[in-house]
Amino acid sequence: MIDRLIEKIEKTKNPTVVGLDPRLGFVPGFIKEEAYELYGKTPKAAARAFYEFNKAIIDAVYDLVPAVKPQVAMYEQYGPEGIKAYIDTILYAKEKGLVVIGDVKRSDIASTAEAYADGHIGRVKVEDEVHEVYHEDSITLNPYLGYDSIEPYMNHCKAYDKGLFILVKTSNPNSGEIQDLDVGEEKLYERVGRLVSKWGEAVMGKRGYSHIGAVVGATYPEQGTRLRQLMPHTFFLVPGYGAQGATAKDLAGCFDQNGLGAIVNSSRGIIAAYQLEKYKNKFSDKEFAQAAREAVIDMRKDLERVL
Amino acid sequence: MIDRLIEKIEKTKNPTVVGLDPRLGFVPGFIKEEAYELYGKTPKAAARAFYEFNKAIIDAVYDLVPAVKPQVAMYEQYGPEGIKAYIDTILYAKEKGLVVIGDVKRSDIASTAEAYADGHIGRVKVEDEVHEVYHEDSITLNPYLGYDSIEPYMNHCKAYDKGLFILVKTSNPNSGEIQDLDVGEEKLYERVGRLVSKWGEAVMGKRGYSHIGAVVGATYPEQGTRLRQLMPHTFFLVPGYGAQGATAKDLAGCFDQNGLGAIVNSSRGIIAAYQLEKYKNKFSDKEFAQAAREAVIDMRKDLERVL
Repeated sequence: MIDRLIEKIEKTKNPTVVGLDPRLGFVPGFIKEEAYELYGKTPKAAARAFYEFNKAIIDAVYDLVPAVKPQVAMYEQYGPEGIKAYIDTILYAKEKGLVVIGDVKRSDIASTAEAYADGHIGRVKVEDEVHEVYHEDSITLNPYLGYDSIEPYMNHCKAYDKGLFILVKTSNPNSGEIQDLDVGEEKLYERVGRLVSKWGEAVMGKRGYSHIGAVVGATYPEQGTRLRQLMPHTFFLVPGYGAQGATAKDLAGCFDQNGLGAIVNSSRGIIAAYQLEKYKNKFSDKEFAQAAREAVIDMRKDLERVL
Repeated sequence: MIDRLIEKIEKTKNPTVVGLDPRLGFVPGFIKEEAYELYGKTPKAAARAFYEFNKAIIDAVYDLVPAVKPQVAMYEQYGPEGIKAYIDTILYAKEKGLVVIGDVKRSDIASTAEAYADGHIGRVKVEDEVHEVYHEDSITLNPYLGYDSIEPYMNHCKAYDKGLFILVKTSNPNSGEIQDLDVGEEKLYERVGRLVSKWGEAVMGKRGYSHIGAVVGATYPEQGTRLRQLMPHTFFLVPGYGAQGATAKDLAGCFDQNGLGAIVNSSRGIIAAYQLEKYKNKFSDKEFAQAAREAVIDMRKDLERVL
């Protein structure tokens, strides 16, 4: 997975991942109305509206970005129909050649971890028939339970060319409450970073980076720089740019000397760009996808300044 | 939620939660064959088989136990149809008066945490229409991201009489890799335990326990005893009994002096009892649910010895 991601980043010259985290408040009225007419004001209508919204965004940006990152919670909250929209979004993005990172942040052990791994990045068996269910290229995981909560996914990374991004230092205001605790001579996030780096050695790609990456929030620039040094072979998925307040300068330290090593997420700054002060006079509701395209181009320029 | 759970435990005189973690290998052939005839060897058939299996187990044990704990991964792996079986299982268990703990171990921040909270223990809004989607009474969460990853759920605990169980010390072999690290004078799991206890003060029930509980693995008896002292107002959800190797004696320290304060999970030891050496000569495949009932009775006797 990681080699495909790096290749796509080089091809698009753009280390941006578009966060497909739709909310009904982001979806233009004309898409919602159509869905409500078909299904009423139901979870099914919300799911339908998300899928139509995502398709238009993907169509508008797929040639400019290497990857998308759907956030499963936004879909999961609407039940089975929401999960269907999540999977349909993944399939559509893959049809367009995008790498798909499923932001699921799962954490469990033993046969439960195997079930998540099989469903998301592996295969499920029903007797002698084999099914691929979620189709993500990579997913995010939470490390709190230790190595045996990660291992079941690692076999799938090898068998199916998949990847992982494990939470190390997250972008939220309270992330330090646990992650910044002192454990001996270092912080917990550093210890977790070293563990993730070590786990990753077993599944190295061909370009110097492991299939096991790390989530490192752009909102903590010093920690990002420190982790880059500590984890030279670990690719970073970097949330926190834009809406959460981090600037291009803040995340420069997450990249390596070749301008690789990290991919930066932006969600509402792109998918809801048409609602932002900067774009709303230029684009109507009907042009929400074009606004997203312009926001991607602007973000690429912004990142180029520091790479 | 926690008051309802305590009341049910007192009524059934049984601090056992039945883990509804089905696997195709646990489901008797006659249930699977029926599902395959209807839907082929598909994820939909697996989901259907799980639901039929769960219904029979619930029918056989609902008067003996206070609660069930479906593990969402087992259903989620089969996609939308699996999620439907998960929700249908929850609804059926609630119809029978059981408290339902959704073992989802979610972890995320801000609007994403809100989406999980709304879907699982709150309500989702589609314009002016309000929908309850997953219907769990309580769910499990992972604490690695800190307080702002927990807070969105807390409002729902109050508004909808719901509960949480937050991972503190898990039952798996590698749980110590991160959870047992020294942070100052204490272990990380102790620090997390104190945080969970503090967070729980804002949502106390009427019986001396908070709506925010903790997951504490029975496989680490000393840590369980230590946490019981550290968190006198936090109810424990205790995995690890039976198949994972912990005995009744190991988990005695998780209870308070009144024999309350903890609920012990058993999954395959109950739902797949008919396959175990102990029961398989007595019960046929067709009698898998009666075997589960006998296993529940045996487990209650086993726990009574130490309470």
